[in-house]
Amino acid sequence: MAKPERLIYLALGGAGEIGMNMYLYGYGPEGNERFILVDMGVTFPTMESTPGVDLIMADPAYIQARADRLDGIFITHGHEDHVGALGLLWHRLRAPVYARRFTAALAKGKMERSGQPTDAVRQVDAFPHQVHAGPFRVGFLPIAHSIPESSALVIDTPAGRILHTGDFKADPTPLVGEPFDPAALRAIGEHGVKAMACDSTNVFSPHAGRSEMTLIEPLNALMRDAEGLVVATTFASNVARLRTLAEAGRQAGRRVVVLGRAMNTMLKTAHAAEVLEHFPEVLDPLDMDSVPRRDLLVLATGSQGERRAATAQLAQGRYMGLELKPGDTYLFSSRTIPGNEVPVSRILNLLSERGVKVIDDTDGLYHVSGHANRPDLAAIHELVKPQMLIPMHGEHRHLVAHAALAAERGIPAAIAPNGTVVDLTGDAPVLAEHIDTGRLYLDGTQLIGALDGIVRERIRMALRGHVAVNIIIDERGKPMGGSWVELTGLPDNPKMRDGLAGALEAEIDRVLSRAKRNELADDESLDDLIQRAVSRISNDAVGKKPVCKVMISRLEA
Amino acid sequence: MAKPERLIYLALGGAGEIGMNMYLYGYGPEGNERFILVDMGVTFPTMESTPGVDLIMADPAYIQARADRLDGIFITHGHEDHVGALGLLWHRLRAPVYARRFTAALAKGKMERSGQPTDAVRQVDAFPHQVHAGPFRVGFLPIAHSIPESSALVIDTPAGRILHTGDFKADPTPLVGEPFDPAALRAIGEHGVKAMACDSTNVFSPHAGRSEMTLIEPLNALMRDAEGLVVATTFASNVARLRTLAEAGRQAGRRVVVLGRAMNTMLKTAHAAEVLEHFPEVLDPLDMDSVPRRDLLVLATGSQGERRAATAQLAQGRYMGLELKPGDTYLFSSRTIPGNEVPVSRILNLLSERGVKVIDDTDGLYHVSGHANRPDLAAIHELVKPQMLIPMHGEHRHLVAHAALAAERGIPAAIAPNGTVVDLTGDAPVLAEHIDTGRLYLDGTQLIGALDGIVRERIRMALRGHVAVNIIIDERGKPMGGSWVELTGLPDNPKMRDGLAGALEAEIDRVLSRAKRNELADDESLDDLIQRAVSRISNDAVGKKPVCKVMISRLEA
Repeated sequence: MAKPERLIYLALGGAGEIGMNMYLYGYGPEGNERFILVDMGVTFPTMESTPGVDLIMADPAYIQARADRLDGIFITHGHEDHVGALGLLWHRLRAPVYARRFTAALAKGKMERSGQPTDAVRQVDAFPHQVHAGPFRVGFLPIAHSIPESSALVIDTPAGRILHTGDFKADPTPLVGEPFDPAALRAIGEHGVKAMACDSTNVFSPHAGRSEMTLIEPLNALMRDAEGLVVATTFASNVARLRTLAEAGRQAGRRVVVLGRAMNTMLKTAHAAEVLEHFPEVLDPLDMDSVPRRDLLVLATGSQGERRAATAQLAQGRYMGLELKPGDTYLFSSRTIPGNEVPVSRILNLLSERGVKVIDDTDGLYHVSGHANRPDLAAIHELVKPQMLIPMHGEHRHLVAHAALAAERGIPAAIAPNGTVVDLTGDAPVLAEHIDTGRLYLDGTQLIGALDGIVRERIRMALRGHVAVNIIIDERGKPMGGSWVELTGLPDNPKMRDGLAGALEAEIDRVLSRAKRNELADDESLDDLIQRAVSRISNDAVGKKPVCKVMISRLEA
Repeated sequence: MAKPERLIYLALGGAGEIGMNMYLYGYGPEGNERFILVDMGVTFPTMESTPGVDLIMADPAYIQARADRLDGIFITHGHEDHVGALGLLWHRLRAPVYARRFTAALAKGKMERSGQPTDAVRQVDAFPHQVHAGPFRVGFLPIAHSIPESSALVIDTPAGRILHTGDFKADPTPLVGEPFDPAALRAIGEHGVKAMACDSTNVFSPHAGRSEMTLIEPLNALMRDAEGLVVATTFASNVARLRTLAEAGRQAGRRVVVLGRAMNTMLKTAHAAEVLEHFPEVLDPLDMDSVPRRDLLVLATGSQGERRAATAQLAQGRYMGLELKPGDTYLFSSRTIPGNEVPVSRILNLLSERGVKVIDDTDGLYHVSGHANRPDLAAIHELVKPQMLIPMHGEHRHLVAHAALAAERGIPAAIAPNGTVVDLTGDAPVLAEHIDTGRLYLDGTQLIGALDGIVRERIRMALRGHVAVNIIIDERGKPMGGSWVELTGLPDNPKMRDGLAGALEAEIDRVLSRAKRNELADDESLDDLIQRAVSRISNDAVGKKPVCKVMISRLEA
């Protein structure tokens, strides 16, 4: 007997965490479903858990093993946590990529920089147009977010309709990009929505979200009243904010300068895709000197404290010939993402030391979030009236709180972190099975597995230091000369005559002189003897047990 | 002609940062002042900038070089950022240490654990009692904070009176510890205060601080309504909070268990010093099984996400036989210190995955700060009416904002980050000179300088990986056998036949085979050749330039 068809949801990334979004929908007989993939994003490394890593993304192994059944990749919007991994992982899947115009331009950029074919990315119109992909029909429903053209996906399947919200905020006047449209969502809902997979990021924010429009007056006042140069930083991709800032500057008689590669690229792409109109004319940074400071507004990258961005460089000295002075104003028109507090705070203080007036988002006057708050989530539940809810785009506790919010309206919800296969076929979500998911790291130019141990070794070196030991065994099987120890990142003990290195060499020589013939003949035994000696002496001398690598050279007879 | 006497303030730590407090006051002819030192605190390392470091403290070099002119060390209260470095640094100064009873007990503990004489710590009574120390008379004025017995210092000098607030909050009902006493402060002010050095931590908090007492009702309701076990975590030293929590638990019919060494030690010390009364009887953790979960309240260490504390262990599985279950409640009665967001968030999610209801300070119901907010600072300015203000205990931008607040009342203020000598002799503060300050790290068992480069090497290894290269030069000055490369923490390139190590060895051998006789004879030239080859090949192969150590063994003729 043929297995019955089923409709499933499976997050490979983005559920149980914020970042690296990658969601699968499948339809067909169990074990033989056809799939579509929604978003291929990255998340950013931290010194805490991923030192030296360049980017982090979900491991697509599950869908890679079933790539012949993948009918399309759909990108909801152009943020890095939704499209950043496309160029790096596409060659493992080789399915057509669908996105709207601006997002497609950004996606093609990702493909190009990774040497992948840009024509795999296909530009599509907004809903009611739908792409046919296997058993799925997928439409891009415009929704407001902090980047233009963000879209919810209307996914029609033989088992019913899914609304995948993507990232959104309930903003009727986002200034750039399409507004949040209750009527359109209600219409979708009236058609009948089986399941809604919904953004959970701001479920802990108790008040309804404010509109981008509420920033106009405070920003105008700030630009007008500031006595010197004003620099404003925000996410490069927040094109609406860039325009709000620039327009406030223009009204205050300020010429607008844009500093930072990412921001310039984003504005150019937005212009080309016709999602950005009425942006004031931009002044070339080389001409800044010709304009009085009082008449300048600089838009700069680096709101999250990124080391090489314009903001960090301005805080430390100068960037593109610009140096900040006492009386200048620096506006952070952004929220600090958790984990970035320390670098951002360091920059705020460097600016303060230069006599610059620093304004951040403490009072909420100069920034609004791109995500729906708790009451906004309740509103979309009410508009769409889905049969079931799948909270996504959130840490575990966000998913739990969002499910509880749905329960208030009697909507059943599945708490489904990465790897949880949810069967949506029936009247309520069923947790069907759990598959292994993982993370890949872009480390230099290589993709490595999070569990490969490479980063763990680096963390161990960062905490404990490194000892390299070199010994030579002569033709007769005897240690030749003394051992040689090279320390990296270890404190010394000034009370020891020859220091830690000397003490280690002396102890290793002592151990070798006492070693038995068969121990000296065997690399593994020798390695073990030396490792233990290094650990013991280092711990006694300086209180650390370093990472130790032993290199044994044997002279041939 | 004799130089005139002067009164100076100099922060060695704690001004321009939050943590590692260490302040000097000096009186006498310039270059021959007598000194007192206020507080010797630590700050905590981060993986970001100080991986592997155990503690960070101000370098006392300036006063160490003048230790013969140091007349006393005064500890305002028992928090780690005020007393944590005492045991580690006291032997460099060897001056008598003064503190009130509970603080003295904690200070003696620090001395004892570092093998220093505990009788250097002298217990003193509160103001109006004053200690005579050189030209200074110093009194401990009780003030409210998040640890019992916190004291402002009333420092009388021939040039006038200084009020050094220490850490404080304007709480008239702190429940444990002495209240904020406006009348006492007004009396101090009426006597005439030349300069007030004042806590700036919360200058950006716009609303008046709330009292510990406002927590009683919400906590009582929480303990009463929770269905399962309740675990509450806060700072071990926040003895008042521990009592508020325990009392709420007792009223809800819950037995109180204390988990975590630091918390047990702190409660014991507080009992012994008679600063903690009416604490409910504590249940031995071994007897937890005999009490229904519904009737238990566990107080646990680890509110900041510390890896080995009770909270982290409970989140990961079990601690002292206790395992959390769905329906239990975990309360973070604490604020997350900037920099700790990521580890705390990881724990919140681990708890959420266990089905535990997690309550944090988002709504402000279950925690109040230990520091004075902006209106509270304005109030103490008004009570004390100092002739001048020195904002302290804050990052640079806090100092600037606090100075601006003082300016609103016409009080001149000195923005004096670490190393700034402020002359308080005249009518307004004068920035007299700047001296070099620095930081010491406790790294394992050794104290090292922050600029020694040891931690920088560890950070480089964490970001770039490590390559050890071993070559042998024979008696005739020729390379013998092949080179040997040992990689730590580097990704491999699967497209290379012999991997990165093989490619490096081949390239080093090639470089050596082409090297001139004089290059082979010179260790420095060889090292340089090899370093460059390793950097070039690693970058081409995997996009990383590792830390490289070259070990050249030369066989003797």
